[in-house]
Amino acid sequence: MGLSTGYSPAGSRLVTTPLGAGAGAALRRSPQLLRPRRPPLATVRCSVDTAKQVQDSAATVAAEQKASRKECFGVFTNTYDLKADSKTKSWKKLVNIAVSGAAGMISNHLLFKLASGEVFGQDQPIALKLLGSERSFQALEGVAMELEDSLYPLLREVSIGMDPYEVFEDVDWALLIGAKPRGPGMERAALLDINGQIYADQGKALNAVASRNVKVIVVGNPCNTNALICMKNAPNIPAKNFHALTRLDENRAKCQLALKAGVFYDKVSNMTIWGNHSTTQVPDFLNAKIDGRPAKEVIKDTKWLEEEFTMTVQKRGGVLIQKWGRSSAASTAVSIVDAIRSLVTPTPEGDWFSSGVYTTGNPYGIAEDIVFSMPCRSKGDGDYELATDVLMDDFLWERIKKTEAELLAEKKCVAHLTGEGIAFCDLPEDTMLPGEM
Amino acid sequence: MGLSTGYSPAGSRLVTTPLGAGAGAALRRSPQLLRPRRPPLATVRCSVDTAKQVQDSAATVAAEQKASRKECFGVFTNTYDLKADSKTKSWKKLVNIAVSGAAGMISNHLLFKLASGEVFGQDQPIALKLLGSERSFQALEGVAMELEDSLYPLLREVSIGMDPYEVFEDVDWALLIGAKPRGPGMERAALLDINGQIYADQGKALNAVASRNVKVIVVGNPCNTNALICMKNAPNIPAKNFHALTRLDENRAKCQLALKAGVFYDKVSNMTIWGNHSTTQVPDFLNAKIDGRPAKEVIKDTKWLEEEFTMTVQKRGGVLIQKWGRSSAASTAVSIVDAIRSLVTPTPEGDWFSSGVYTTGNPYGIAEDIVFSMPCRSKGDGDYELATDVLMDDFLWERIKKTEAELLAEKKCVAHLTGEGIAFCDLPEDTMLPGEM
Repeated sequence: MGLSTGYSPAGSRLVTTPLGAGAGAALRRSPQLLRPRRPPLATVRCSVDTAKQVQDSAATVAAEQKASRKECFGVFTNTYDLKADSKTKSWKKLVNIAVSGAAGMISNHLLFKLASGEVFGQDQPIALKLLGSERSFQALEGVAMELEDSLYPLLREVSIGMDPYEVFEDVDWALLIGAKPRGPGMERAALLDINGQIYADQGKALNAVASRNVKVIVVGNPCNTNALICMKNAPNIPAKNFHALTRLDENRAKCQLALKAGVFYDKVSNMTIWGNHSTTQVPDFLNAKIDGRPAKEVIKDTKWLEEEFTMTVQKRGGVLIQKWGRSSAASTAVSIVDAIRSLVTPTPEGDWFSSGVYTTGNPYGIAEDIVFSMPCRSKGDGDYELATDVLMDDFLWERIKKTEAELLAEKKCVAHLTGEGIAFCDLPEDTMLPGEM
Repeated sequence: MGLSTGYSPAGSRLVTTPLGAGAGAALRRSPQLLRPRRPPLATVRCSVDTAKQVQDSAATVAAEQKASRKECFGVFTNTYDLKADSKTKSWKKLVNIAVSGAAGMISNHLLFKLASGEVFGQDQPIALKLLGSERSFQALEGVAMELEDSLYPLLREVSIGMDPYEVFEDVDWALLIGAKPRGPGMERAALLDINGQIYADQGKALNAVASRNVKVIVVGNPCNTNALICMKNAPNIPAKNFHALTRLDENRAKCQLALKAGVFYDKVSNMTIWGNHSTTQVPDFLNAKIDGRPAKEVIKDTKWLEEEFTMTVQKRGGVLIQKWGRSSAASTAVSIVDAIRSLVTPTPEGDWFSSGVYTTGNPYGIAEDIVFSMPCRSKGDGDYELATDVLMDDFLWERIKKTEAELLAEKKCVAHLTGEGIAFCDLPEDTMLPGEM
């Protein structure tokens, strides 16, 4: 263990140490990582709330005004003065949301959810900034066309681009889904390197051009280490703002506990996924509650909890691929929505949610300076605090140490991408990502 | 023309004839079509609001009670007494929704929208009954698993099956998406026959087991004629309850008018798609309004309206396939949501929406006894009336006659499926469905 604030293996007890105030100091990372802004590859700017707003009546939009927004897509090239319209004048300020891998299946579900208002609310206009690649650019145009055809009143801007330095400009949220899938015979180390490079670049771009308080949710796998890389390359953005998505694992765990207990899934609370979004992840049945009671009191079948439950959650993605012929896109998109909603709405009293976040200053004794899924609570302001009313026991701790070891090994493997020297890759075993075959 | 209530080509005028009360009489169709119920292939029943409801505390659900719902999928096998829970006791009665082609891409978007509550509202629990085929059954299980993992509180039942006589039992809505795509070199007549057979079977099943006031929305192409076939095979269900989806065409038309006028798309109203969901469809710029003014007053470019606008709307699906590599699924699902919402919420004053509905008794002079997209208004009770404050001119009428001719020819082509004798196929030309290549 070695950490004074951490868990010591003496039976089940509450970890009550508050999140150290010193966490902020750890956020200052090597400034040489901040590279100058690259020349733009493609221009994607367009805006509702600029000085260029049109005050004229609908039919008299001049060609010159259109030109100022020519970078927007299709119908979104038009300009709208939301304050001048009785229907929209009470709306909040536009939120800018970047999505990478925007032509992929997860995004295809996510973008329409964002546009519908179900995530940020019915008075929150949004701008979608879609990041794709040269290969996917036509598909991105197709996505933008389908967004046009969907007539979402809250969706006021759609722009598409291939350069993160353009697409990420002023974004309030960066939902980073794009990643190369692991090819046949590809070593996990190679995957870490290829995708790590993408996330290093995107971190630099966020650091250079995004909102100074941008919230970043990394979905592309291996998402914990990708989030760490992204964060390390964005020293001017608070480390706390980077998340690795483990919400789908949490949702799956809730569903399995509900099924076993014979209750509907909204009765399951305080479900934590600890650690890495890989098969070493730890779905926590010690702290989980069913109808407000400890899950272990409701589900007496300890063998099921210790073996079958954990395995079912870990392997669910793989089973889905077998059934469905491809990895889960719709439920992943739903879990991204859940993850965002958990940050922009207050956490229900006593409950928490799981997110892969920066460990420095954590009250559990988990190794510092990695991205690790832990229980979080939010006031709904986009920020979160780690839960401190958390039980720990030997069974749970042992498994937390295993997923921690994996993440520490992954970190060494990408040292060349985090500015921490020469990479050394000695992964404990070839663990799979959930859903990998 | 020949119909006393119809349009006569004497310039632009209002059609004010009310929808004839005689329409009901036309609904009685040949009773020999009502075949006896087939033996079930697969059992899919499960229910929230039955006598089998569990009153016990969460953890004591007995195996025997589970068994009574063993036909439901996964976590949905559990039973829930919504009235006993403070969170759900004010909810409405469960709505049963069947979706065919449930393993396809459109459904994959639609099902999650239905489950999220964005269609029927946040106090409306729903049951999803998924109809698939032997080939798609594993994928259906995958969809059901993803629905489980999404933890939607309003989604209380999911069942999957291959037999429409089972899946459609007591359904309040039937969203019929499943259809064979047109293969290379396939004649349109062959497509009409293959898909018509599917819709004849499903009509019989709806007639035998669905709610007596089930609302049916046909999406599978050729959707107008499929809807007609389905309706003719379900004589005990009001003909008015059958819809062919032309809402995506309407949405696309609104978007294009907005783009041309330099306004946001929520400023466009009274957009009618007349006729067939094919390239003969008629997007109506005579009646469309922009910011409450006639579209023709706002957009002075008559040549654009008469040529480019219509062509752009008609060909949009094809352009999307080129960009995206497959036909539009997300925006089609959005338009199905829009179509349902238009029937369950009151139409805004003065506005209307388009739907392919039964023509008998229509006030426009369109041939009776076909399914034709026309302007509709709803009080929000699931029913609709045809709009009567509709302008007509020679240009519009001429094009309506063309799409009408196509639908009459399609109808002759499927006479063997509607119980009206021997089919005779002489389609005016090989028109394509929007999106067909």
